[in-house]
Parts: sequence; structure tokens; C-alpha cells
Amino acid sequence: MNIIIFTAADRINDNSISLPVMVSDRRAEQIIKTHGSKIGDRVKIGELNGLIGNGIITVIDKTAVTIRIEKLDISPPPKLPLTVLLAVPRPKVIRRVLRSLTELGVERIVLMHAYKVEKSYWQSPLFSEEKLHNYLLAGLMQCRDTVLPELIIRNRFKPFIEDELPALSGNTEKLVAHPGDYPACPVAINKPCTLAIGPEGGFIPYEIEKLQEAGFDCVSLGDRILRVETAVSSLIGRLFSQ
Amino acid sequence: MNIIIFTAADRINDNSISLPVMVSDRRAEQIIKTHGSKIGDRVKIGELNGLIGNGIITVIDKTAVTIRIEKLDISPPPKLPLTVLLAVPRPKVIRRVLRSLTELGVERIVLMHAYKVEKSYWQSPLFSEEKLHNYLLAGLMQCRDTVLPELIIRNRFKPFIEDELPALSGNTEKLVAHPGDYPACPVAINKPCTLAIGPEGGFIPYEIEKLQEAGFDCVSLGDRILRVETAVSSLIGRLFSQ
Repeated sequence: MNIIIFTAADRINDNSISLPVMVSDRRAEQIIKTHGSKIGDRVKIGELNGLIGNGIITVIDKTAVTIRIEKLDISPPPKLPLTVLLAVPRPKVIRRVLRSLTELGVERIVLMHAYKVEKSYWQSPLFSEEKLHNYLLAGLMQCRDTVLPELIIRNRFKPFIEDELPALSGNTEKLVAHPGDYPACPVAINKPCTLAIGPEGGFIPYEIEKLQEAGFDCVSLGDRILRVETAVSSLIGRLFSQ
Repeated sequence: MNIIIFTAADRINDNSISLPVMVSDRRAEQIIKTHGSKIGDRVKIGELNGLIGNGIITVIDKTAVTIRIEKLDISPPPKLPLTVLLAVPRPKVIRRVLRSLTELGVERIVLMHAYKVEKSYWQSPLFSEEKLHNYLLAGLMQCRDTVLPELIIRNRFKPFIEDELPALSGNTEKLVAHPGDYPACPVAINKPCTLAIGPEGGFIPYEIEKLQEAGFDCVSLGDRILRVETAVSSLIGRLFSQ
């Protein structure tokens, strides 16, 4: 955790925030246990979807860690102009992938269904709205950003691709990572992009056709079959230089 | 698991291999449970450090899965001409990072000490020779490669950098990812490269000086502080196109 993110609900007055010590709230736990912080320590803080600054720890007790806000005056880092369409991965993997996408500064994430996404993934307790929010938050607290990526969840492939994707992807560069004899993924395009990534086992031919109809070009990642978390980080590193 | 890797020890004769069903050997478990394979199924196999081909499952019983080798005639994919010097990350993270580096086709990995590497990491049971080997093997079975990256472990920073690194890094492009006002990491260099990645908290100034004396240039990854597993995948995706 490289920044402590707080929300309006954490404010106890204009100058202080209070983070509850609860198993469900890992912020206070991390401050105390992982970082071993003490009263008087200066810590980096940021308001969710707001500014970044510093605070001083004024209270650590059994129920809360209180931090006095010193200043909040730095803008969060800019996002990449990138939307990632991600076929829902295995529940265990979702957390890491959402964290990575958030860390890398992806602006918008669409978790969508695809033929090879097991239906059970959608019912997993790891896929609840609260959990998903927490994965994004963990990504922000890692990379010192405060702005949540927009998260869109669509459990039907065809209506999403036909009815929503055209407006969503607009004039962006549209790429789908797909194994096969396709051009290599372009390097340092540094312009608005929509990148689709299939499930384990890939998109089926029908899905590739629908994406192509929507203007997407297939790009190859090479001969190696990468785990989704490795693939997304590698692709985003390639598409965008600083 | 996208390929089943076997070794000479798994061969029961020239045409068949037998994978023991044991908790410590996840291959048979994955064949049976994760993939739900049955007798008669064709599976992709590869000999460790050797060729890739197909086999047919002939026996599944309580002690072993036996596979008849059909053919072994495909060369593994080429490696990237890349050596990664990695300050030892937290034990929990080592597994994922070594898997990712292997998946991406890194030729050689040096796990090395740095000032901000906690001494306890070196004593972790997750850091045993057998475990490290298994992490690399898991990477190979993901990406359909058979050739283990070379793994070098050095628990003293200075002697490694002064005495071994010059010969090891030779005429390669030498880069160290380091936060600060440095040029962005180059894109698609596609030539032999040695890439150093610091611990959580980064290399200390002395270590950066020693790396610079050894010919390394600092490159920046931008404002965001990435987890090591995200950083390495992103950097390698950027440095090498297919």
C-alpha cells in the first residue's frame, strides 16, 4: 500500500479521517501490521476520486486509526486512454487482473461474458460488487492513484458487442489479442485504444467474427500461451509508453 | 497447463511415460481433475529441455497416469535474449514472478540480494531449490515451452555486481528500472538485454551507482508504482516485440 485512500465516509471532520480497524477494512490493518506505523508518522493519503497529499497519524487504538490531513494538493496521475474488454477470468484470477489493470492506469474495464467463460464464474462470491470494488481500490493504493477505473459488467456477449460496443469504442484503435497468424500487437501507439482479451481457451470463431464486424483487428502475442494477468500487463506495456 | 512436461525419470519405456499421482506432483492431478481427461484422450506433451509433441492417455489409476508418446518432433519456441536481474521479492510473490518470466520466454534469471530485500526472504520455505524449480516448470507448462530458463541465485550484491555481472551482461543493452526523472524504458529494442529490477522500495543510491558503474542506464516506468509482477511483464512486453 503506497497511498491510503479515504472516502467522505471516513472523514470525522474537515481535517481528520478515521479508518476503522476491522477485518473487512484492510487499510488500518496494513498501516499497523504491514508498515508498523506509529503515532506521529507522516503517511501519503488520497481522497477517492480526488486529490493526493499527506497526513499525520494521531491515534491508533483498537477501533480505529485516525489521521490528521496536512495537505491534499496533488492531482492523481493521468489514466491511459484505454478500455480493456476482458472475458471474465477464473474468480481467483479476477483480483490480480483487476489490480494490474488499475495499477497500469486503464481508464475503463468491461468484464464480459464469452462462450468459454464458465457460467459458475458469474456466481462466485469473489465476483460480488463489493469484492470487485476492493480489487480496484487495492490497485489504486498500490500505484498512488485515486481515481477508480470505470467498471462495466455485461453477462451477455452479443447484445453488448452489437448494441453498446460501437458507441463505447468509437474511433479508438480496436484490437483483439488472439492466437494465430496475425500481425504482432503494435508498439507504443499512445492513442485511444480498445483492447479485447479472451478467456482461457480463447474467443470462439463466432466471437472473433462479431468483434471484427465491430471493427476490431486481431493481433498476435506470439507462440507462447500467457496467463491472462501476464498477457494484459505485457500488452499494455507494449501499447503505451509513458 | 497447456503442455505436460516429462523428464527421463518419467519414462517407463521408449514409447510411454508414467506420471505419479501424488500431491507433490501436480501434473497427474491437473490432467485428471482440472482437465477431466479420460483414457484415449490426446494430450500435448514435451520432454524437459527437449522436443514437443503429442501423447495418448492409456492408463489412469490410483498411482499413475500413463501416456503413450505418439510423436515428439516440434522445437520449443525461441527464448528472448534477455537476462533479468531481480532483487528477491516477497516469498509469496516469487512464484508468480518466476512463472511470468518463464512464460514470457526470459533466457536467464538472477535472483539477487539488495539492501531492501528482507533477510528472512532467503530463509523462506517457498525459496527452496525444489520450489523454485517447480515455479519455472509451471511457467513452461503454461506457455508450451520445454526449456528451463537458467536460474542463478546470488545472496551478496557487491561481489555479484563487481565480479560476475560484467562477463554476464557483456555487450547487451543494460537497463535498470528505477523511479525518478529518467528516460522512459525503450520500446521494441529486440536485441540482447540485461534488465535489473529492484525490490519493493527500490534500489538504494549505492546500488544504483554500482549498476551504473557496470554500464547500466536508469529507465523510468512512469509515476505509477507497480507491483513487481506487473512491472516485469509490462517492461518485457515493451522491450520485445515478437
